Amino acid sequence: MELDHVGVAAADASGLAAMFGELFDAPVVHEEEFDGMSVLFLELGGSYFELLEPHEDGAIGQYLNTHGPGIHHVAVRTDDVSDALDTAREAGVELIDEEPRQGAWGHEVAFLHPNSTGGVLVEFVSH
Amino acid sequence: MELDHVGVAAADASGLAAMFGELFDAPVVHEEEFDGMSVLFLELGGSYFELLEPHEDGAIGQYLNTHGPGIHHVAVRTDDVSDALDTAREAGVELIDEEPRQGAWGHEVAFLHPNSTGGVLVEFVSH
Repeated sequence: MELDHVGVAAADASGLAAMFGELFDAPVVHEEEFDGMSVLFLELGGSYFELLEPHEDGAIGQYLNTHGPGIHHVAVRTDDVSDALDTAREAGVELIDEEPRQGAWGHEVAFLHPNSTGGVLVEFVSH
Repeated sequence: MELDHVGVAAADASGLAAMFGELFDAPVVHEEEFDGMSVLFLELGGSYFELLEPHEDGAIGQYLNTHGPGIHHVAVRTDDVSDALDTAREAGVELIDEEPRQGAWGHEVAFLHPNSTGGVLVEFVSH
């Protein structure tokens, strides 16, 4: 597995993308509207920043209201999200997604509950 | 530049390392006492999780008390931390460290203030 991306809850995703682009020499490689959010991916080596700017109330909008902008989750890339979920289930980890679902950029994703993973919101992702 | 690591404030770093090792097939590749903390690095592809368990009051201890355990910062690997700081300074970013300093694992590090970077605590690191 590899570190795929760090997900950031952003008040202004395109502004933050411009700054991160300058600081990290990281170009925007994908941009879409997904699930009521502007989603931008910046590439950095073989990994990404995923900037999430919500336009309607949802998990990220609630996060922004409660915590303010900042790091929201970390995604680990795997060849097989179902297998990774099985391993997590066997380890007694509480799952947010019992089965893989489609995330942004057409990727297959599933989230683990941070209560089980030291407060870290973990996403498994397969490209 | 590349995504180097995700830094995690942990109540029990070795317990979390065991779980992350199982979930992500990520071995502990370095462990030390640094700045009043147990610091463990788990390798995942060419990137790392850095688990930080404080034993005395300090920035991470205060973070744990205020926010609870979870993702604390993201580190971007660069060949030259001084150059990266210059770029950040020119972009008007508020710096926590005006000059590189020695971090865990003997790495050269410097932090940017999250007020300037969309709430994201960013570390530049050079190995």
